[in-house]
Amino acid sequence: MSTGFFGAIDKIPFEGKDSTNPLAFRFYDPNEMVLGKRMEDHLRFAVCYWHSFVWPGGDPFGGQTFERPWFGDTMELARKKADVAFDMFEALGVPYFTFHDADVRPEADTFTESRDRLNAIADYFQEKMDASGIKLLWGTANLFSHRRYMAGAATNPDPDVFAYAAATVKSCMDVTQRLGGENYVLWGGREGYETLLNTDMGRELDQMGRFLSMVVDYKHRIGFKGTILIEPKPQEPTKHQYDYDVGTIYGFLKRYGLENEVKTNIEQGHAILAGHSFEHELSLAAALGIFGSIDMNRNDYQSGWDTDQFPNNVPEMALAYLEVLKAGGFTTGGTNFDAKLRRQSLDPEDLLIAHIGGMDCCARGLKAAARMIEDKALAGPLSERYAGWDKPQAKSMLDGSMTLESIEKRVIDEKIDPQPRSGRQEYLENLVNRYV
Amino acid sequence: MSTGFFGAIDKIPFEGKDSTNPLAFRFYDPNEMVLGKRMEDHLRFAVCYWHSFVWPGGDPFGGQTFERPWFGDTMELARKKADVAFDMFEALGVPYFTFHDADVRPEADTFTESRDRLNAIADYFQEKMDASGIKLLWGTANLFSHRRYMAGAATNPDPDVFAYAAATVKSCMDVTQRLGGENYVLWGGREGYETLLNTDMGRELDQMGRFLSMVVDYKHRIGFKGTILIEPKPQEPTKHQYDYDVGTIYGFLKRYGLENEVKTNIEQGHAILAGHSFEHELSLAAALGIFGSIDMNRNDYQSGWDTDQFPNNVPEMALAYLEVLKAGGFTTGGTNFDAKLRRQSLDPEDLLIAHIGGMDCCARGLKAAARMIEDKALAGPLSERYAGWDKPQAKSMLDGSMTLESIEKRVIDEKIDPQPRSGRQEYLENLVNRYV
Amino acid sequence: MSTGFFGAIDKIPFEGKDSTNPLAFRFYDPNEMVLGKRMEDHLRFAVCYWHSFVWPGGDPFGGQTFERPWFGDTMELARKKADVAFDMFEALGVPYFTFHDADVRPEADTFTESRDRLNAIADYFQEKMDASGIKLLWGTANLFSHRRYMAGAATNPDPDVFAYAAATVKSCMDVTQRLGGENYVLWGGREGYETLLNTDMGRELDQMGRFLSMVVDYKHRIGFKGTILIEPKPQEPTKHQYDYDVGTIYGFLKRYGLENEVKTNIEQGHAILAGHSFEHELSLAAALGIFGSIDMNRNDYQSGWDTDQFPNNVPEMALAYLEVLKAGGFTTGGTNFDAKLRRQSLDPEDLLIAHIGGMDCCARGLKAAARMIEDKALAGPLSERYAGWDKPQAKSMLDGSMTLESIEKRVIDEKIDPQPRSGRQEYLENLVNRYV
Amino acid sequence: MSTGFFGAIDKIPFEGKDSTNPLAFRFYDPNEMVLGKRMEDHLRFAVCYWHSFVWPGGDPFGGQTFERPWFGDTMELARKKADVAFDMFEALGVPYFTFHDADVRPEADTFTESRDRLNAIADYFQEKMDASGIKLLWGTANLFSHRRYMAGAATNPDPDVFAYAAATVKSCMDVTQRLGGENYVLWGGREGYETLLNTDMGRELDQMGRFLSMVVDYKHRIGFKGTILIEPKPQEPTKHQYDYDVGTIYGFLKRYGLENEVKTNIEQGHAILAGHSFEHELSLAAALGIFGSIDMNRNDYQSGWDTDQFPNNVPEMALAYLEVLKAGGFTTGGTNFDAKLRRQSLDPEDLLIAHIGGMDCCARGLKAAARMIEDKALAGPLSERYAGWDKPQAKSMLDGSMTLESIEKRVIDEKIDPQPRSGRQEYLENLVNRYV
Ligand SMILES: [Co+2]
Ligand SMILES: [Co+2]
Ligand SMILES: [Co+2]
Ligand SMILES: [Co+2]
Ligand SMILES: [Co+2]
Ligand SMILES: [Co+2]
Ligand SMILES: [Co+2]
Ligand SMILES: [Co+2]
Repeated sequence: MSTGFFGAIDKIPFEGKDSTNPLAFRFYDPNEMVLGKRMEDHLRFAVCYWHSFVWPGGDPFGGQTFERPWFGDTMELARKKADVAFDMFEALGVPYFTFHDADVRPEADTFTESRDRLNAIADYFQEKMDASGIKLLWGTANLFSHRRYMAGAATNPDPDVFAYAAATVKSCMDVTQRLGGENYVLWGGREGYETLLNTDMGRELDQMGRFLSMVVDYKHRIGFKGTILIEPKPQEPTKHQYDYDVGTIYGFLKRYGLENEVKTNIEQGHAILAGHSFEHELSLAAALGIFGSIDMNRNDYQSGWDTDQFPNNVPEMALAYLEVLKAGGFTTGGTNFDAKLRRQSLDPEDLLIAHIGGMDCCARGLKAAARMIEDKALAGPLSERYAGWDKPQAKSMLDGSMTLESIEKRVIDEKIDPQPRSGRQEYLENLVNRYV
Repeated sequence: MSTGFFGAIDKIPFEGKDSTNPLAFRFYDPNEMVLGKRMEDHLRFAVCYWHSFVWPGGDPFGGQTFERPWFGDTMELARKKADVAFDMFEALGVPYFTFHDADVRPEADTFTESRDRLNAIADYFQEKMDASGIKLLWGTANLFSHRRYMAGAATNPDPDVFAYAAATVKSCMDVTQRLGGENYVLWGGREGYETLLNTDMGRELDQMGRFLSMVVDYKHRIGFKGTILIEPKPQEPTKHQYDYDVGTIYGFLKRYGLENEVKTNIEQGHAILAGHSFEHELSLAAALGIFGSIDMNRNDYQSGWDTDQFPNNVPEMALAYLEVLKAGGFTTGGTNFDAKLRRQSLDPEDLLIAHIGGMDCCARGLKAAARMIEDKALAGPLSERYAGWDKPQAKSMLDGSMTLESIEKRVIDEKIDPQPRSGRQEYLENLVNRYV
Repeated sequence: MSTGFFGAIDKIPFEGKDSTNPLAFRFYDPNEMVLGKRMEDHLRFAVCYWHSFVWPGGDPFGGQTFERPWFGDTMELARKKADVAFDMFEALGVPYFTFHDADVRPEADTFTESRDRLNAIADYFQEKMDASGIKLLWGTANLFSHRRYMAGAATNPDPDVFAYAAATVKSCMDVTQRLGGENYVLWGGREGYETLLNTDMGRELDQMGRFLSMVVDYKHRIGFKGTILIEPKPQEPTKHQYDYDVGTIYGFLKRYGLENEVKTNIEQGHAILAGHSFEHELSLAAALGIFGSIDMNRNDYQSGWDTDQFPNNVPEMALAYLEVLKAGGFTTGGTNFDAKLRRQSLDPEDLLIAHIGGMDCCARGLKAAARMIEDKALAGPLSERYAGWDKPQAKSMLDGSMTLESIEKRVIDEKIDPQPRSGRQEYLENLVNRYV
Repeated sequence: MSTGFFGAIDKIPFEGKDSTNPLAFRFYDPNEMVLGKRMEDHLRFAVCYWHSFVWPGGDPFGGQTFERPWFGDTMELARKKADVAFDMFEALGVPYFTFHDADVRPEADTFTESRDRLNAIADYFQEKMDASGIKLLWGTANLFSHRRYMAGAATNPDPDVFAYAAATVKSCMDVTQRLGGENYVLWGGREGYETLLNTDMGRELDQMGRFLSMVVDYKHRIGFKGTILIEPKPQEPTKHQYDYDVGTIYGFLKRYGLENEVKTNIEQGHAILAGHSFEHELSLAAALGIFGSIDMNRNDYQSGWDTDQFPNNVPEMALAYLEVLKAGGFTTGGTNFDAKLRRQSLDPEDLLIAHIGGMDCCARGLKAAARMIEDKALAGPLSERYAGWDKPQAKSMLDGSMTLESIEKRVIDEKIDPQPRSGRQEYLENLVNRYV
């Protein structure tokens, strides 16, 4: 460790499930083979910059709780922050990290100077990445914190904000490409509204469609090979956000002809806030062909806001990774921890422990999911349940060769009187419990 | 009144806002002109058959509370029910009604016999419609109450259920067309899932897409001039329904190439359950070109299930009708009360009073909305807020003539530093309060 | 098995965790010693009558899905139902069952006849209980399903309903005592309101207080040794129920001087609906001295109504049993499954499988909790966190010997400037994950 | 106006309901007589200091949006802030204001210095209050924003925090008494927990009980004549707060023998977050004898967090003031706006407009409620509904002279078979709509 922020800790070891060392992995062994692939290559962990190194611990009713030696607004402190961040990435042994422009450099008075500072930090990152082998899962632009974005970025009533946001995204895409980022993410934290009384939703959706089209065009023009990802969230900070959930985003992409260009980065907590389960969003994205990556941080079911907590419920995670595996696993995507410490978790060690716990839970979930796949535990009963659709008569109803009239005729002629069969939900739930 | 169920009541009169007669309208005057159109022609009220004449007052923890002389399973009682229903339609002076097949005829042992019974009741309806001038806003098939549909209709794992549902929809479309129905509605109460463990969502969405395509094809084949409408609802009865909300339905329609063929029937209560406001769903549907009709019944904000109550909050209704008017008003659609009495409201009079209250609230809401339109109360500030987008420089960012690079250049060259302006939410809320 | 309803199945065996037999226990071994007590004596499982043998599978949008040979309204069918019920209790090896009057006998035209039928069935139960050794955990009266209770039982505006309910509770307490029931439960499904417009809440709370006082008086008069339990639920069926949650019930009991006479039966699903976790309600009840028994059935976090599902998430159950153990374990209480099959789970086998899964999860949860207790896994860090309060200076602030003035003086004199310490939430979450 | 912050605006006039002046009252006329009392004396408006003059417009995803000339940490700026605040109080013509210590003076390095600064500002306030006639509705201590309170104030695991909080409350009570405050409020924003894993709830409740007892003792010792108020809130900032709702607080007060010493300050938004309506909480507090004061700011029903918006729905407010009037109106309490501008409402004018709209809505609501009272619109049907309880037979069931046995005897002898009567909810809802 170069900075000493985490004390004498070097690299977090894998010690196996009987270890009682809080600073060791019990399940995450990067080299363990799962379904023929290294665990590390399945999970593709990334640590995010903002929650761990930027967030001061505030909430709507209280201020800073964390005291970090790198807090402040100078480039020197920005480099110090990078030093500690890479210390942590290395200690954890994660292959990737993720960042917003605003996380890594102090905002300047002009766009040009802010961009130049970003580029300077990117140079600093490049050195550290080269030295450590740590890679960039994705980059993104923070288009929500500054007051200029209070009424939206792409969807702002002021076209100058649209312009400023467009220039900012360009600068972040440039840096992401330069650092070999494997994806570029857009989260529209202010793309939504507080009240319809002052909002022209149709117009704003068109602005957002145009903005995204320019991003896609630019990606191709610069030869960026990564994936463009949108992160759905239904609300918070705005009362209502346009990228509500996977289904809504799919419609948006279809509307602007972008469904083959853009995929989704799905967060457990955001799925919950939208009234879905995480598995639902993953499964739907896969069905619609827009599954990309995940933010593996949970919401507290009791809280009506985004708590961005580290995951800890293994049965839930097994079902999530089951969907990831069923979708073919990650290609450019990965498992990002868009998770923050509780604001009372003040110690440097807490940062490590939180990530270790999250990574171990993911590993347990992945392994459980893989065993379910291997055993066809769920796939078997599923095939059986839909087996009726394999018959030619049934297929003809789906392939367009039958009509309401011809189907009615068959119902009448054959006196069809369908008899329900058990859905076996409790049986299947028990089955899953064999694996977790 | 032919049946005497409602006692000596004949036609509910309009008595003006100072009336204290609970059996009179205070605001709904069908002939009053609003924005150059009769109020009746704006609101296009419909009463639904199921809640008012079929629902026995049960809930998950209690059984029947209503005792109605037409409850029972014979065709004679079905006709008696129709007599009382038309008595009420006439007393209320509503121009339309709506029904499911299962509301109006007893289920028979075979599909054929059920269909024949439906046709027989349709004949009976036709006489009553001719005599009264009351019309059919829409017909629909109940594909959710019978146990055969417990695992879905179009999305059932058993293709025979798909077939049975298809034949049933055909019979309902036939009757709807014969009775001059102005729309045909599909609500997918069982098109969803209870657990992903036994569900192949991609396959089921394809089944649903195919089903809807056949409905659209059939509509054209038989020359039905009405609109096909889907009614979104996020959950209940299933844990998760595929027609979650307007945004999700739009994506679904785009996916199967049906976005120009099908519109939405939007219910306030379902919007709330999906985490939206009613206005949001109306405004979004209008923006996406799929606004069709409304079910004007509210949910209790405290309850996590569909309470289907009669509307009573005028300020909320004014905002809803404002969106309807901004969308150009109804064409084939209308204002349907998919609303039920509270199960303690036992008296025949309660049925009338509930509808009178709902209709009066709609009338108040419509009139308030119309005055806002006339005064450009909100349209004025809105234009002003987005005025920046009228400039050529701004337009060029939307019309495809600019790129991220050219926009960035302008940001740099012109040193663009956007300054936020007040969103004036409280001012606009106060403004609305002048009208309600 | 006497009835053959469950086929050839006899007694569900314990086969250990590697068993793949869906009709065997993998974790529930009644005789396994946990913290010095048999597992059976810790968990004290009970199966409820209503969900498993009475509920027809309906929901607000659909009717009966289950077809059971005992459905119907005769005493003969009531005995047949009892036969199957006891078959299942024996197959599962549960030591207890629970019932409402309405579950076990058909309602008659008069109170007297209904009571007599209940007594007759009780005689039948007594024989079966003697033969099998199965005991009654608790009895209760159904004061919510019949239309007479639509506006409340104890809290009804009609005193005759209060009287009818009182007489009914007496008959159920009599039967409970006669059958050796270890508790008597009151769930106030209709003790609440739909609208404050027609409700005098103060008056109704007084009615409820008086009703409960009579129940307690009667208990003592007849020498019933069991515990009187109230089951909190915030809403559903009513919009708002008076027994909202544990905290509310405690205040109610204190108000009517019953806090030493009555305890609570806490259900996971109801805790969730009230905005709490199950653990919260358990822990609070223990702190307030009113912890009694549990209904171990979960709600789906996505659904805003009471889904009464069988539990399946082991980490959650470990935390629940941890609170039970910390409260000293059950005395007269136990683990009741107030849980119903999903309405698509049609097969007799599903009934067994659902309970087996639930019991196994409880056993896993209990064992994990016990190990945490043994290791002082959480108790250790907890003591350390509050260690400051062991000092005399600190104690004096709690024992009444200090005042705001004397404390202020100390703050000033000693220049007290408290420094926050890490709450270590992630560390503790990881710790729990060692045990589940 | 002394400061000029609000431009040339002097005193907001009452112009009557046809006024279109956004800076005039349309309904709030302080001197209008309502039920024999001046409107001002009914409503007893207070403006809070923190939201309007301290909050910078941040949210969890964005920073400051407001730019106020008094932002900063000096006593000079604190006085400047007070100047603007009193400008606004005078412009609005509100009789009261409310504040936390942290709102009005910069935090110092020591308790003593912080207290002295508070006292200095109180002197400054006193002059302004004398000059303007504006009074203090209540004072309170901010025991939630500073990091020392991150794990609770009274409920902190560190007794030094308890001590610091106690000393701080003393200093705030002293100032409140000195300024003639009519109440003293405690809101326990950090009195709750984030995770039960590190929390001893029983211990913390006892700490809280002791703390409150000391507050009550001190009140009597110094002869403070105002009311001690607790403000319930279920969650946020903590995951779970001990002062969840009115019912919970009542139980807490009873437990520590404080139910005659402490009342509640009820906020609409907090009621909503707890799963209640505002009216429920008001009505319950009145029934339990702990109704004190209100914070008249709403939550957005779509948002799962505390939005603290200005009220704008008149029908809802009419029902709220109906409960206030039924409870006998305010004694020491009043209508406080614990409401903040939306963070996009940047202009000084927005501050005035928001309060004007809120005050006008309250006035409309109060007047509608008063007319309902005068007409016995709801009281009449209510008496009729419960009329059965006026009979001696019914009364004897409540006064303790009957038992379960004697009631059962009467049910049997008189063959009691209660017949339900309509609850008339829709009728009553329509009735209310005559008044709003
Ligand atoms: Co998040
Ligand atoms: Co995220
Ligand atoms: Co509905
Ligand atoms: Co509907
Ligand atoms: Co339940
Ligand atoms: Co229960
Ligand atoms: Co609040
Ligand atoms: Co407040």
